[in-house]
Amino acid sequence: MEEKFKQLSEKLAELSDLVYASAVLGWDQQVYMPPAGAEERGNQLGTLARIIQEKATAPELGKLLEDLMPYAESLDPDSDEARLVKVTHRDYDKRKKVNPEWVSEFARATTVAETAWEQAKEKSDFSQFQPFLETIVRLRREYAQFFAPFEHVYDPLLDDFEPGLKTVDVKAIFDVLRPQQVELIRKIMDKPQVDDLFLHRPFPAKGQWDFGVSILTDMGFDWKRGRQDKSMHPFTTSFGLGDVRITTRVEPDFGIESLFSSMHEGGHALYEQGISPTLRRTLLATGASMAVHESQSRMWENLVGRSEAFWKRYYPRLQQMFSSQLGNVDWFTFYKGVNKVEPSLIRVAADEATYNLHIMLRLELEIALMEGSLEVRDLPETWNAEMKDYLGLTPPNDACGVLQDIHWSGGSIGYFPTYALGNLISVQLWGQIHKEIPDLENQIGDGNLGSLLEWLHINIHQYGAKFEPQELIQRVTGSKIDPKPYIRYLQEKFGQIYEI
Amino acid sequence: MEEKFKQLSEKLAELSDLVYASAVLGWDQQVYMPPAGAEERGNQLGTLARIIQEKATAPELGKLLEDLMPYAESLDPDSDEARLVKVTHRDYDKRKKVNPEWVSEFARATTVAETAWEQAKEKSDFSQFQPFLETIVRLRREYAQFFAPFEHVYDPLLDDFEPGLKTVDVKAIFDVLRPQQVELIRKIMDKPQVDDLFLHRPFPAKGQWDFGVSILTDMGFDWKRGRQDKSMHPFTTSFGLGDVRITTRVEPDFGIESLFSSMHEGGHALYEQGISPTLRRTLLATGASMAVHESQSRMWENLVGRSEAFWKRYYPRLQQMFSSQLGNVDWFTFYKGVNKVEPSLIRVAADEATYNLHIMLRLELEIALMEGSLEVRDLPETWNAEMKDYLGLTPPNDACGVLQDIHWSGGSIGYFPTYALGNLISVQLWGQIHKEIPDLENQIGDGNLGSLLEWLHINIHQYGAKFEPQELIQRVTGSKIDPKPYIRYLQEKFGQIYEI
Repeated sequence: MEEKFKQLSEKLAELSDLVYASAVLGWDQQVYMPPAGAEERGNQLGTLARIIQEKATAPELGKLLEDLMPYAESLDPDSDEARLVKVTHRDYDKRKKVNPEWVSEFARATTVAETAWEQAKEKSDFSQFQPFLETIVRLRREYAQFFAPFEHVYDPLLDDFEPGLKTVDVKAIFDVLRPQQVELIRKIMDKPQVDDLFLHRPFPAKGQWDFGVSILTDMGFDWKRGRQDKSMHPFTTSFGLGDVRITTRVEPDFGIESLFSSMHEGGHALYEQGISPTLRRTLLATGASMAVHESQSRMWENLVGRSEAFWKRYYPRLQQMFSSQLGNVDWFTFYKGVNKVEPSLIRVAADEATYNLHIMLRLELEIALMEGSLEVRDLPETWNAEMKDYLGLTPPNDACGVLQDIHWSGGSIGYFPTYALGNLISVQLWGQIHKEIPDLENQIGDGNLGSLLEWLHINIHQYGAKFEPQELIQRVTGSKIDPKPYIRYLQEKFGQIYEI
Repeated sequence: MEEKFKQLSEKLAELSDLVYASAVLGWDQQVYMPPAGAEERGNQLGTLARIIQEKATAPELGKLLEDLMPYAESLDPDSDEARLVKVTHRDYDKRKKVNPEWVSEFARATTVAETAWEQAKEKSDFSQFQPFLETIVRLRREYAQFFAPFEHVYDPLLDDFEPGLKTVDVKAIFDVLRPQQVELIRKIMDKPQVDDLFLHRPFPAKGQWDFGVSILTDMGFDWKRGRQDKSMHPFTTSFGLGDVRITTRVEPDFGIESLFSSMHEGGHALYEQGISPTLRRTLLATGASMAVHESQSRMWENLVGRSEAFWKRYYPRLQQMFSSQLGNVDWFTFYKGVNKVEPSLIRVAADEATYNLHIMLRLELEIALMEGSLEVRDLPETWNAEMKDYLGLTPPNDACGVLQDIHWSGGSIGYFPTYALGNLISVQLWGQIHKEIPDLENQIGDGNLGSLLEWLHINIHQYGAKFEPQELIQRVTGSKIDPKPYIRYLQEKFGQIYEI
């Protein structure tokens, strides 16, 4: 059995090398590739994806996993070995259920859909994108059928991002969240708005970059095992435990957004850098789920980076760096400014209090599309009606509305809810951290972020993908994903800022 | 047959995607990778190399090539299709002859030898490297035996870099070259030395970079299909015809070396950017040989970049940019300074007139090691004796002598002669270009480098690896590789500079 386990490890090492190689090509594509490199890069990524799929569904791998299942069951169920066999077996089974012809058709459909989406967005004309999205919705409904029977047609899609999580659970969570979050925003809107005009002045790019680097360093980002570059859309990627990279967007007209972007991606990167070396070159050397990953980025971006304690400590340094922009702005005004709540049309620009509503809207539409209760052609109208309902706004055009996100054009349905779940998990963990590190706020106020990172390493990061998200959160906090701490957090934080 | 040709094309497309993917990983490794990424990057490159080797020696590929040989012979022998089958068949045959166990042993041996070489060089102690080099020489002699029978044991090694070229040909070329080049250097050494002290002042890095970029642009480097970055050791790499990258080393204390480095790598890059799109994603989408590739880099670096015409045009711009370093230096003094001849110990720092002697020394030693007439343990002594003989110098230690180059530690034996052959080919082509573009010097003097590049595109670049090097040079110049034009070139150029 140990010989077979060694064989499995070798196969997984090869697979993970190929996945990392793809990641390097993908990183370069977004960061440094010259424009004319796109077509060939697409070929290279396509070839790697095909080889990965072949190897990940090879019958010898399946046989090995079958043979190893009894062995895995004989081990401590929390051991790396037992979990590795279990998670790999699950991944193999899922991949095998999907028809290879569907995989090819889906790859073709999303390639043309992304281009169509770009053009449709540029012209702000949903009708140009409609037939492509119809194909994607059809293919995603077919995809779900590979996993029949299921409780809900959306379950198999959600499972790709949140292993083990069910649509019914997500709905239940959002049903609790929605009315309270809508209510809070209504109360905020009744209060005088905070000032954030000072954030809309140009901030020189070099200062933004340097400040971001100094904060990443204080967060514990290991520069020997990673780097930061610039890209149009910030992201985090890993080429192995010794090379985790983030990007940020640094433009003078973007205020200090690059700082929050660096902290957000830095949170993702600390997760990847913190995975136990024992999981190296396996399927477990990644985050537990997209939502758990997002909980890390949101924690550093919002719970640390938009907190009073953080700015008490760091504001003097920022103010000194940008004295002409911030010389006359006191720290509490600044703190309130970076926490301004204002319903807006664009998800990625949304503040903490309104962000989840953008997600709920998308989740409802995705579920309706998958159930067949909503037709793609009716999407813009429904989108606009729900925006009005949730946030009191009506998009002036499709580009600011239904066409704003790239996700659907790339075939991602089931991804959006992970953003909101990440917010909830971050606060749920935050509560637990405060129980175990009672003077956390003081430590942050002293610029000492080390024990926070250590806690995350010990309780979350080191495990990689050993545990499913609900299991992990339950282990750490004693309960499954729970929206109540998040609601309390929003009420307290914005209650203070808006004097509710 | 057309169906089979299509199958071949698909297999080669996949192979070339994997080779390009490796190139992206290799580029990043030298340009941006954080230090702790090295181990995992090695794994990734190893896995890709293994998959490439598997696919390049797959029996189905061999069968396809066998089936296609009669078809290829029925086509115009100069057609892309005929050449593609021929070159691919040759590559397949060569790979198949090598025992896979040898490949693994060689990979392991060179990995440890590179580290041993680094340490030995740091301590300037050849004895630390000796056992590793002994293993490599043994393995390379075994490698040659896979291709027995051969005329000379060095032939199979040379053939990896210069398809079709034989040791006897290279020896004959160098036998003509050696005495005349030694004689020329002796004459130069009898004359007063030219002044180049002004090159040893610090040149600000940004100015060097900007000047290099402007020259690359004038050379016709296509920035939409490539980029330049910085690295410790400058190199050129291709990720496809739409993405060809170069690096340069830019340090204030390196004088204007970064400019010549940019022109050298730019010459390589123009070759790769100029390959016909019809050869895309095949084994032909690369240079004809290492020597032909080097002829392109040397042409731009030396025949253009160290010429009178070039500096008549560009010196005022350079002088303006670096007025404090060059304000008092007239253009002809500058021209002579960048062409200073001085025997030195280090190959990579050698001038045009002495460079080839460094190569001849290495070639003799390589041949003797392969023939078994020289033992590795006697290498330092022989090296030092030959340095004295060729250049009148004795290395003070192994680091400046036999340990200076990385090549042998990586298992490259047979590579060095391509550098010298590249010099010869560059001048041989240069003569042909002057016949066809009589006012070339005037064009260069006007900063018009377009018709030179066009000539290279039409006569060299577009063909990629369709023709073997001797065949290509014969087609273009009417004769095979010939040392005489190079000797005349050196005599004329340095005769003028040193008033011989």
